[in-house]
Amino acid sequence: MKLDMNKNEFKSFLLHAPQDKVLKYIENIHPVDILDIVRENKDDIKDILNRLPEDFIAGIIDEAETEEKYEILTCFSENKQKNIVEEMSSDELTDLLGILDEEQANKILAHMTADEARKVRRLLSYDPDTAAGIMATEFISIKENMTVEQTLKYLQDTAEDIENIYDLFVIDNFDKLKGVVSLKDLVTNKFDALISEIINPNVVSIPCEMDQEEVGHLFEKYGYLTMPVVDNFNRLLGVVTVDDVMQILRDENTEDIHRLGGVADGEKISGTTMESVKSRLPWLIVNLVTAILASSVVGMFEGTIEKVVSLATFMPIVSGMGGNAGTQTLTIIVRGLALGELSYKNVKRVLFKELGIGFITGAAIGIIISVLGFLWEKNITFGIVIGIAMILNMIVATVTGFLIPLILKKCKVDPALASAVFVTTFTDVCGFLFFLGLATMFVKYLV
Amino acid sequence: MKLDMNKNEFKSFLLHAPQDKVLKYIENIHPVDILDIVRENKDDIKDILNRLPEDFIAGIIDEAETEEKYEILTCFSENKQKNIVEEMSSDELTDLLGILDEEQANKILAHMTADEARKVRRLLSYDPDTAAGIMATEFISIKENMTVEQTLKYLQDTAEDIENIYDLFVIDNFDKLKGVVSLKDLVTNKFDALISEIINPNVVSIPCEMDQEEVGHLFEKYGYLTMPVVDNFNRLLGVVTVDDVMQILRDENTEDIHRLGGVADGEKISGTTMESVKSRLPWLIVNLVTAILASSVVGMFEGTIEKVVSLATFMPIVSGMGGNAGTQTLTIIVRGLALGELSYKNVKRVLFKELGIGFITGAAIGIIISVLGFLWEKNITFGIVIGIAMILNMIVATVTGFLIPLILKKCKVDPALASAVFVTTFTDVCGFLFFLGLATMFVKYLV
Repeated sequence: MKLDMNKNEFKSFLLHAPQDKVLKYIENIHPVDILDIVRENKDDIKDILNRLPEDFIAGIIDEAETEEKYEILTCFSENKQKNIVEEMSSDELTDLLGILDEEQANKILAHMTADEARKVRRLLSYDPDTAAGIMATEFISIKENMTVEQTLKYLQDTAEDIENIYDLFVIDNFDKLKGVVSLKDLVTNKFDALISEIINPNVVSIPCEMDQEEVGHLFEKYGYLTMPVVDNFNRLLGVVTVDDVMQILRDENTEDIHRLGGVADGEKISGTTMESVKSRLPWLIVNLVTAILASSVVGMFEGTIEKVVSLATFMPIVSGMGGNAGTQTLTIIVRGLALGELSYKNVKRVLFKELGIGFITGAAIGIIISVLGFLWEKNITFGIVIGIAMILNMIVATVTGFLIPLILKKCKVDPALASAVFVTTFTDVCGFLFFLGLATMFVKYLV
Repeated sequence: MKLDMNKNEFKSFLLHAPQDKVLKYIENIHPVDILDIVRENKDDIKDILNRLPEDFIAGIIDEAETEEKYEILTCFSENKQKNIVEEMSSDELTDLLGILDEEQANKILAHMTADEARKVRRLLSYDPDTAAGIMATEFISIKENMTVEQTLKYLQDTAEDIENIYDLFVIDNFDKLKGVVSLKDLVTNKFDALISEIINPNVVSIPCEMDQEEVGHLFEKYGYLTMPVVDNFNRLLGVVTVDDVMQILRDENTEDIHRLGGVADGEKISGTTMESVKSRLPWLIVNLVTAILASSVVGMFEGTIEKVVSLATFMPIVSGMGGNAGTQTLTIIVRGLALGELSYKNVKRVLFKELGIGFITGAAIGIIISVLGFLWEKNITFGIVIGIAMILNMIVATVTGFLIPLILKKCKVDPALASAVFVTTFTDVCGFLFFLGLATMFVKYLV
């Protein structure tokens, strides 16, 4: 990090230094660094931002979380808002408009030129979770008959305001994508080379309706910095850049982790107590219902437990081990689905593998717990009952942990969302049924 | 995707088409696409690769997983290996050598020029999880007194073999980093502009010992494509590029998700049954020990359960709800720690928040379960006992889910690794103690 002042110094510099010095200094500062200052000094937000040029404010808004964008934008007069909106990139503007109500959105759209507004309205019409929903429409397109030198001069004239120009897209007269020339190809070839000589025609393009998570996997696979988005006629619509994709992948990962842990997607460390309660209570109530289901299985066997009270002592082990084994499998499966590692090709092999794992780990844990059960109750039947129940329970756990995410995926429900509750309920119910059921069958040998 | 053949066609094209056609075609193909073919046709690996040029094979090895790299490299004669190694990038070569035994590594080092070998030996000396461990040493450095045109010509002569040239780093005569000029700045400025006029001196650099996960967060924050790595004297050592960082972040996320789910980091969907058993059994045994701990608490109260057998029926609800509430909190905390959202500044506020959440959700669930307990047992004391136990249990759960990840982090243990087992053990033990303890205290009102 090379800011040569600490955050407090930087804040007072932004507020009090002569404006020409501020303008000169921020030329080389990333907007996100100013966003940090603004976030920590909400009271001074207007005073700080009003000293900055409009294109830089647009840059800060581009970096802000979607909910913050509107808050920052509305710090300014209508007129200034208009100028800032003009400087914002189309994808960030679309994100902002997407969360506003119609009245607010129309106000901002009214600030734009007819042409710009039409462009943004079209972007808004795409599903925000698809390639078209995340693409930007600012990009450099060139023609095959240009030379390297002509292209460089064209860039000198036009590229200043375009965020990412590391790939230049070659299109024909009907906007169809012909190929790509990277900026590297451009600068490492002689000035008089033709674009048609250095074009890469095998450009990997993204269909506009592709899901954003899949777009993320394409970027991870190829390591590209930008990728073009095309419609069904291979016409170039826009570009997706790697920094947007990183944010998407981070958010998708957070979503998966949160869902696996049973909290709502949007819960934030910085949120209020009541927001967290709202995020968690519904899930706890779902879990309460399923826990009651498991309990009612136990309730069916109260007669047996009354005769052999040690069964109650071993119940937490049965449910705990089943839950853990099921969670292990579902973790592997849910992550494998998210990364695209599990496919129709290997699904059968993985099922048999999980069966095998359930049997082997069940046998290992079953033998240990048999011995413990025998020692605790001084009864060999008790040991055999808990041991067999454990093996059966662990096999059910791994198979359930495998099947449930796949079934949810088939039903178009995110496997991360609901797998855990189904798997643990199923293993609890089956575990108690096996354990207490077997105990009831052999109760005369247990007392 | 624009490969104009399917995978089988592509494979037979690679194997059987005239070699000049193959060479022409692959010029515009990403090496990862050939890697896909090679992975699915292990028998033909030598035949396919032997038709490709050495720099392209180096590109394929660069894209391969670390374990695959050696497998591919050793398909070739010693002499050809030498040529391929020369074309590999220093960071990928270091990854490869890092997993080989000394004899294998020395064999490959012997293939390199003395200068190259020294460079790679130095890279190997860095901790592989730090910025220095993931950086590449191929980059473009320029001087302040060059013009844009001179720089472009310099790039035309030298940049061909360097993977990523989107940022040009300006250094002084002592290799100290003075600033950065992006390729975009270069091509959007006039040919006669001086580098000193367009340099950005506020370059964000990475200290060489920074942990790779933190490096990932810097990239996420700034959205840069490359970042320079410097030593303590601000001398430029190498660069990290965003595509390497994406892979690191993906692997760190998978690691966190796997650890939270209680499976070993390296377990893969494609692995064998025994690999999975090895990944999971140790963790299941740890869980067995902790489950026995929870069970022994229940064992202490067998006398009470014998008198009031419905206590056994409600036990799964107590442990289930405590476990879920604890898991929710620890999910939020572990993810917050991974994303750097939890800091010393807000830690106290978050603790009080979790206490509040525990109390409110505990009260809500407690009231419901009280009523259910009363209806099941037709005894008001039973309802009160299970209700109070539930409130206490949920408060303990949220506080434990908050504290344990932080304590583990303080002890330099990954919070994702062991939090879940500690939290669920603690909530099970406390939950049973509260519930069965209270029941024992008021047992005369329960029978």
